[in-house]
Amino acid sequence: MRGVVARRHRLVVEDLPDPTPAAGEALVALRACGICGSDLHTLAHAEVLPEVATAMGLATTFDPDGDYYLGHEWVGEVLDLGPDTPDPPVSPGDLVVSMPYLVRVPDLVPLGFSNDHYAGYCERFLLTAALCLRVPNGLDVRRAALTEPMAVGLHAVNKAGLTPGDTALVVGCGPIGLALVAWLRTRGVEPIVACDYSPQRRALAERLGAHVVVDPRDQPGIDAWRAHAAARPLVIFEAVGVPGMLDDVIATAPSQTRIVVAGVCMQPDRIRPLLAIVKELNVQFVYAYDADEFAQTLRALAEGTVDVAPMITGRVGFDGVADTFDLLRAAEHHVKVLVEPDGPPQPAAL
Amino acid sequence: MRGVVARRHRLVVEDLPDPTPAAGEALVALRACGICGSDLHTLAHAEVLPEVATAMGLATTFDPDGDYYLGHEWVGEVLDLGPDTPDPPVSPGDLVVSMPYLVRVPDLVPLGFSNDHYAGYCERFLLTAALCLRVPNGLDVRRAALTEPMAVGLHAVNKAGLTPGDTALVVGCGPIGLALVAWLRTRGVEPIVACDYSPQRRALAERLGAHVVVDPRDQPGIDAWRAHAAARPLVIFEAVGVPGMLDDVIATAPSQTRIVVAGVCMQPDRIRPLLAIVKELNVQFVYAYDADEFAQTLRALAEGTVDVAPMITGRVGFDGVADTFDLLRAAEHHVKVLVEPDGPPQPAAL
Repeated sequence: MRGVVARRHRLVVEDLPDPTPAAGEALVALRACGICGSDLHTLAHAEVLPEVATAMGLATTFDPDGDYYLGHEWVGEVLDLGPDTPDPPVSPGDLVVSMPYLVRVPDLVPLGFSNDHYAGYCERFLLTAALCLRVPNGLDVRRAALTEPMAVGLHAVNKAGLTPGDTALVVGCGPIGLALVAWLRTRGVEPIVACDYSPQRRALAERLGAHVVVDPRDQPGIDAWRAHAAARPLVIFEAVGVPGMLDDVIATAPSQTRIVVAGVCMQPDRIRPLLAIVKELNVQFVYAYDADEFAQTLRALAEGTVDVAPMITGRVGFDGVADTFDLLRAAEHHVKVLVEPDGPPQPAAL
Repeated sequence: MRGVVARRHRLVVEDLPDPTPAAGEALVALRACGICGSDLHTLAHAEVLPEVATAMGLATTFDPDGDYYLGHEWVGEVLDLGPDTPDPPVSPGDLVVSMPYLVRVPDLVPLGFSNDHYAGYCERFLLTAALCLRVPNGLDVRRAALTEPMAVGLHAVNKAGLTPGDTALVVGCGPIGLALVAWLRTRGVEPIVACDYSPQRRALAERLGAHVVVDPRDQPGIDAWRAHAAARPLVIFEAVGVPGMLDDVIATAPSQTRIVVAGVCMQPDRIRPLLAIVKELNVQFVYAYDADEFAQTLRALAEGTVDVAPMITGRVGFDGVADTFDLLRAAEHHVKVLVEPDGPPQPAAL
C-alpha cells in the first residue's frame, strides 16, 4: 500500500507493508484526512515532541530522527476487524471517525505522531475499534473529516467559561479560528470580532458567524472590538500560534481580559509579564478535547448545527502532500485541504 | 524635612520643601513604611513604568530620568488637614494607612511611583483624606505597616478561585509568598507546600501556616507537593518574580494546574507555550487589591486573624535605605524591613 512518510523534516511517498489488526482493532481504508497546522509545525519541529511528552508525564519512545507518520483528522472505511474482537461497535463497510489514539496496553499511541503506526496520510491503518464512531447517515465524508479540528474548537470554547454578556475576539481565521467562530455563534456570543490577513478567510469567518471581520493591516483587531463592544467583558482567542502573538495579545488586551490560547506555538516565546500583571489577565491554554466533545461534534456536523463545508478549500493525493505543506505555509487562501487516496497530484479546489 | 529621592537608579537623602495639603488632603508624618520588592525592581527598571501605564490605558507623565519618590506601604500620623476639607474621616493625631493613591482630579497619582509627590520614604507627605483608614486601637504601628503587602496576598488568594479540596504550592517566601501562606491557611487549604532557599524564610512560612516547607536545592517544590498531595487539584502561586520562574513552573506543573502569578517580573520573560498547552494550564496574573480587600486586611491584622509580626525582620532610618536595598537584593534572611524616621543608619533587627 502507499503512504506518506515524514523523514527528517521532509515528506516522501513510499510503498509500505500492510498493517494487520490485532484483537479489538479495526483495519480501515483512508477516505479523507485533513492537513492540520500542527502537522506543519511537527514536520518543522519534531525534536520538541519527546520534551512535550515528558512534561505531560508520558513515557515516550518517539524518535524525531526516525521515520514517522502524520495525519490525525481522518474518515476511514472499516475493511476488517482483528480476530476475537468482542462486541465490535463497527462492522466492515462502516464509515468511521475516531479520536487519534490507538490503545496498545499499556501504551496509548498518539496516531499521527508515531514512528510505529500508520495514520491518516496512509492508504490503510489501524484504529482501536472501541474508539470508532460511525459517521451518521447523510453526513458526507468530507464534512465528517472536519470532526477532529471542530472538536478542538468546541473544547476551547468550553474551556473559555463563557458567561452571558461576554464578547469575543478571534485572532486568526485558520481552521481552528473558524471553528471557534462557528461554535461561539452557536452559543449566542455577540459580537464575535474575527481578524485575519486573508480576504478569503475573513469571508469564511463572516459566513460561519463572525459579526465583524477585520484586516489587521487596516485596523488592529482589538480596535475593531473596541468600536463594537467597548467596556463589555472580553475573551480573546489566540488562534495563530506563532512566536510573538501571545505577547501582542497581552500588550493590547484590556484589563481583566481572558485569553484562550488555542494556537499551538511550538517554539519558545517571549512575553512581558508585567503587562499581564497590571491588567490581571487570565491565560487559559487549551489542548484537544475529551471523548464527549468529540462525539458531540460529530453529531453537530451531522445535524447541520454548524456547516463546515465552506472550510474545505481543497483536496490532494499522497503525491501532492509535500507541496501542499509548502503551499499552506505560504498562502493564506486555503483553509482545510483534505488528503484523499484518489486525490490529484497537486492541491485542487473541490 | 528629610526624604529619600530616587535618582537614576540610585537613592539619595535630601532636604525637601514641606508639602502643603489642599482641600480634601491630609498632611501626615511618616511613622513606618515597608520596603517592597517592587521598590527594588522599580529602582532598577524605572524605564518600563511609562510603557506599563500606557498598556493599562492610563495617561502618565512619569519620567524615569527625573527624580521620583518611592515607598507605598506606610503608616502615618495625621498632622493637619487641607482647608475646607468636608467631613474629614480622620483628625490630627490619628494613625492612618491608605491605598497608595492621591486623588488629584482628573488624575489618580500612584504614590510611591511619582515624580511630583512625596511618599513613604519621606518625613511628611500628602494623602487623600477620604482614602485614609484609621488604624484600630491596639494594633501597633509596625504591624499596621504590613496592611498593604498583606492586601496584595489576600487579593491573589481571592483571584485564585479556590474550591474545596484544592492544595497549594507557594514558590518563594518573601513578603508576598508569606502573605499567601498566611491567607491560604485562614481558608483551610491543606496541604500548603512552600519553598524558598532561605532557612529563615522557610521557618517563617511554617510559623505562618505552611504544612510542608522545602529547600529547592534538596527537592523541587513540586516533588514535595507530589509526596503530600499527589493527584489533588493544585494551585501554584509564583511569588518570586524573576525571569525564568514562570517557565519553570509551567514546565513542572501537573496537567490542569492553575498558576497564580503574584511575583512581579519587570523584564521580558521566555516561556515554552507548548508545555502550557498540552497540560492546559491556567495562568492568572494578579495585581494589587481593591478597597474592600485593603480594609479587610487592616481589620484582620487588628483582630489577630493573621499575625504578621514575625515577618518584620528589621528597621532602618532614611540614611540606611540605599544600603538596605543592596542588602535585600543579596541576602535572604530579611523579609520586611521598615523605614522609620528615627531608625538606625544601618538596618537593624527589631
